[in-house]
Amino acid sequence: MSAPSFQHTFAPLQNSSFLRACLRQATDHTPVWLMRQAGRYLPEYKATRARAGSFMGLATNTDYATEVALQPLERYALDAAILFSDILTVPDAMGLGLSFAIGEGPRFANPVSDEAAVARLAVPDMDKLRYVFDAVTSTRKALHGRVPLIGFSGSPWTLACYMVEGAGSDDYRRVKTMLYARPDLMHRILAVNADAVAAYLNAQIDAGAQAVMIFDSWGGVLADGAFQQFSLAYTARVLRQLKREHGGVTIPRIVFTKGGGLWLEEMSQLDCEVLGLDWTVNLGRARALVGGQSGTVGKALQGNIDPNVLFASPERIQAEVARVLESFGPPHKAPANEPDRVGPTQIFNLGHGISQHTPPENVAVLVDAVHSCSRRLRR
Amino acid sequence: MSAPSFQHTFAPLQNSSFLRACLRQATDHTPVWLMRQAGRYLPEYKATRARAGSFMGLATNTDYATEVALQPLERYALDAAILFSDILTVPDAMGLGLSFAIGEGPRFANPVSDEAAVARLAVPDMDKLRYVFDAVTSTRKALHGRVPLIGFSGSPWTLACYMVEGAGSDDYRRVKTMLYARPDLMHRILAVNADAVAAYLNAQIDAGAQAVMIFDSWGGVLADGAFQQFSLAYTARVLRQLKREHGGVTIPRIVFTKGGGLWLEEMSQLDCEVLGLDWTVNLGRARALVGGQSGTVGKALQGNIDPNVLFASPERIQAEVARVLESFGPPHKAPANEPDRVGPTQIFNLGHGISQHTPPENVAVLVDAVHSCSRRLRR
Repeated sequence: MSAPSFQHTFAPLQNSSFLRACLRQATDHTPVWLMRQAGRYLPEYKATRARAGSFMGLATNTDYATEVALQPLERYALDAAILFSDILTVPDAMGLGLSFAIGEGPRFANPVSDEAAVARLAVPDMDKLRYVFDAVTSTRKALHGRVPLIGFSGSPWTLACYMVEGAGSDDYRRVKTMLYARPDLMHRILAVNADAVAAYLNAQIDAGAQAVMIFDSWGGVLADGAFQQFSLAYTARVLRQLKREHGGVTIPRIVFTKGGGLWLEEMSQLDCEVLGLDWTVNLGRARALVGGQSGTVGKALQGNIDPNVLFASPERIQAEVARVLESFGPPHKAPANEPDRVGPTQIFNLGHGISQHTPPENVAVLVDAVHSCSRRLRR
Repeated sequence: MSAPSFQHTFAPLQNSSFLRACLRQATDHTPVWLMRQAGRYLPEYKATRARAGSFMGLATNTDYATEVALQPLERYALDAAILFSDILTVPDAMGLGLSFAIGEGPRFANPVSDEAAVARLAVPDMDKLRYVFDAVTSTRKALHGRVPLIGFSGSPWTLACYMVEGAGSDDYRRVKTMLYARPDLMHRILAVNADAVAAYLNAQIDAGAQAVMIFDSWGGVLADGAFQQFSLAYTARVLRQLKREHGGVTIPRIVFTKGGGLWLEEMSQLDCEVLGLDWTVNLGRARALVGGQSGTVGKALQGNIDPNVLFASPERIQAEVARVLESFGPPHKAPANEPDRVGPTQIFNLGHGISQHTPPENVAVLVDAVHSCSRRLRR
């Protein structure tokens, strides 16, 4: 793929709070976005999804994908947008045949079930994923610089879970059987996945993504020891290959391992700017462990309110938002003469994707509470 | 209930390795038992289950429950037996109507779905659970002192999850909505559950249980802060009410929170002897945090191999067993003149219940590997 110079064609960024917080620079409020913010809890999303006919029909159509990525920004004062796509596009491009049955999760027509299937795996031609890169460029243009656009992919291990299981799983029996019985096969899958994910994210960066996130949704199901060997090592292999900047602008990299709170110190060694945290992690403890002191190296932290808080009353949502912000602790303030001096920062998010059953009006309460409460904490 | 003096009617214990390890006393090998060791992976279990007609038919029949509890001991050199029952017997006795459909998890006919249902909850008459206590006594008698018998219950929070959801759940939306929206209702459910669980476990101890275990299977789905308030506090409320001994013999208490590895230090404050760990926890780190030094207070640790290891080859199973034993570190050895001096101990177990798909012959490989490898490590 060629790498056009997008910095000449995109509107200048108006709200840099998310990117600044990723780089551990001070902001006047805690930026907020929500995992799966473009999704089924929004009636306008459901309407577009119905017109598209299927989930993949939606994700592969540039106009539809752009439309739904922007929908939550029309309703809420979010500080970042995220590409509308799925974490499983890469194995789909490898020929595994991704589909989404109504009311069910993703499914692969051709799961990786034996040694021959493993041997056949290869980094796919990125042209097969052009619909994703087109959606990135189109969404970034449609944003007109309102907020930055995040690109993303599943992690090598998380992709491998779906590729071997063929669908979601309760016990990850198939993929773990391969891991324990034939670690050589698992390492080969993960190596291919890592190189494919790196190429995929680099192409998203070329297409206009201003930050990238790796979703290690299933890293937390691994045993201690296996996580380091089969998930973390391959996330590191992706990160080693990623572009650090585009057009002279730094591209922050976020790694989110659901259920990875026990391995935070090991994850802090990753060559990335931000660690995503689920709701089980105490933010104050995480900040002390890996958040870095003022002026030192450390990770920005992204998270981590329980999405189920959004089913409570406005007052309770506001109280829980305040509790999460306070658990992170005093916001980073840079000295006036050194406004870009780094320190511990939080990007507010859910600890996992938003539920499809969420009342949309409660999301406004949460986003506004993050802004007002975090401004109050800075005074 | 009356508390008969069972120490006069049961055979003397021949293998005390499990109870000694619970009390952090040295043993000549690391004792091992497996969560759900009496279960569907055994053809003889399936045969008894077929004769019983249903899961509850099996659990409520003293002879059948005794038979299946002993089945794994006929095959494997396990160091403990566990009562055959279900964690949801207590809410069933509260009138919620427990059933198990073929191929599905448990289901309650009358879930706790509103304030009136919460108000109606009360500690059930323990006579409704007499079938459990009869199974305890019968199983202990049938064991003839070969190994000790463990009694158990679900934790107050885990019971509440099923009581409010009515069944298993992916997102715990109903129970967490109640937790965030109406914490007062959730606290009332948990208080009733805690007092019921305490009465239930005390009656199991009276009936002959030589150790008791609280399964907090869903504690790990809670947010930091919520876990301490809604799970840990009520597990502590159970423990405060439990008998410490029976007939002059100490009754060790085990608490297992699946996904609770982040809260180990807080759990070490619980008034119990043993903490169960899932496979995400590094045993060496857990030992350093809460295992206690020689001669000091600390917890025995139970766990924590991934049950999916049992799908690998015998050689791989042996290697993984060695890895888990070595991650715990050097076994506790008491000085010859002080054989009961306490130190860090491990009780080997899975990190979660055994899979129904496990090849039974692989369980023998695991149990024998724990014994031989742990004896080797003591030399």
